Amino acid sequence: MPLVRLSMQHGRTTEQKQAIADAVYEAMRETINIPENDRFIFIDEKAPEDVFVDKNFMSTGRTQEAILVEITLRAGRTNEAKESLYRRIAEKLHHAVNIASSDIMVVLHENQSADWSFSSGVAQYLH
Amino acid sequence: MPLVRLSMQHGRTTEQKQAIADAVYEAMRETINIPENDRFIFIDEKAPEDVFVDKNFMSTGRTQEAILVEITLRAGRTNEAKESLYRRIAEKLHHAVNIASSDIMVVLHENQSADWSFSSGVAQYLH
Amino acid sequence: MPLVRLSMQHGRTTEQKQAIADAVYEAMRETINIPENDRFIFIDEKAPEDVFVDKNFMSTGRTQEAILVEITLRAGRTNEAKESLYRRIAEKLHHAVNIASSDIMVVLHENQSADWSFSSGVAQYLH
Repeated sequence: MPLVRLSMQHGRTTEQKQAIADAVYEAMRETINIPENDRFIFIDEKAPEDVFVDKNFMSTGRTQEAILVEITLRAGRTNEAKESLYRRIAEKLHHAVNIASSDIMVVLHENQSADWSFSSGVAQYLH
Repeated sequence: MPLVRLSMQHGRTTEQKQAIADAVYEAMRETINIPENDRFIFIDEKAPEDVFVDKNFMSTGRTQEAILVEITLRAGRTNEAKESLYRRIAEKLHHAVNIASSDIMVVLHENQSADWSFSSGVAQYLH
Repeated sequence: MPLVRLSMQHGRTTEQKQAIADAVYEAMRETINIPENDRFIFIDEKAPEDVFVDKNFMSTGRTQEAILVEITLRAGRTNEAKESLYRRIAEKLHHAVNIASSDIMVVLHENQSADWSFSSGVAQYLH
């Protein structure tokens, strides 16, 4: 279910992207209880002039290399689960591709069970 | 009102994209009661290394050619209307451009009437 | 907090993009009470064949040059604040880069305080 969109400045290799996608997937598996293979991730590569991220808002040391992780998921996770998710994403991304935690931003978008059709014109969560 | 974002691997022709946009618009017209010409669709073309979709989650036979249809719309549709929408999108896309229904994923994002300004700095649904 | 995504046909210069980002940021500062430097904006440039916007829906004179401003923000703004925001975005964009107000569309996506991690694996709004 989670649908992940990663926005970042271009320049990362295919191997790095694979490692980033794996890290986010594994962090979700470990903290918000998603089933195996529930892995839908799209990367939005941006030209430098298309990325505007403040360097110090609510943090210090954010750079132009920052990664925005947007996750759409069904409502219902506790604040504690969300905080575990953020922590684990930062740890995994740092470990996998050496991204500083100051460069990792996560934003969640919640919706409902009826809002998902994985294929075949069917709302799988309703049946 | 619906705002549609279609994410897909690059490689489709302009004619195919037009047919895909038409199919999604027509499916919305037929199932969720939107007015004529309420057509706002953006296509996100992706490089193959920027698309990670599990081949078998909740389905079988998903391929790298999968299309993600994200629709932002005002809250209020019934589950039945949403299910009709999913079914009709799959039928229309298959008919229009021969996409297998296993390669069609739909995710809805709901918001409120006050969240839309179509132009001119005005919240049209409030007036 | 607001996360802004601007979708537009390609062709604007880096200077124009900077002016557009500044205009949206300033409009948010003036109308929806965001702190200084809360500035996270990503531009999605599109090929012409990837943009489908009806020319006259709820308006007249929309063109292929239309800009879609999507803003994700925490729930809680009044309708009046949202209307001020739309008006101010239209004014600022017109003044900054001479975009006709008929070419400015805004869509809001609301979420909650727990849905934001600005960096370091922490949900800053919860602490």
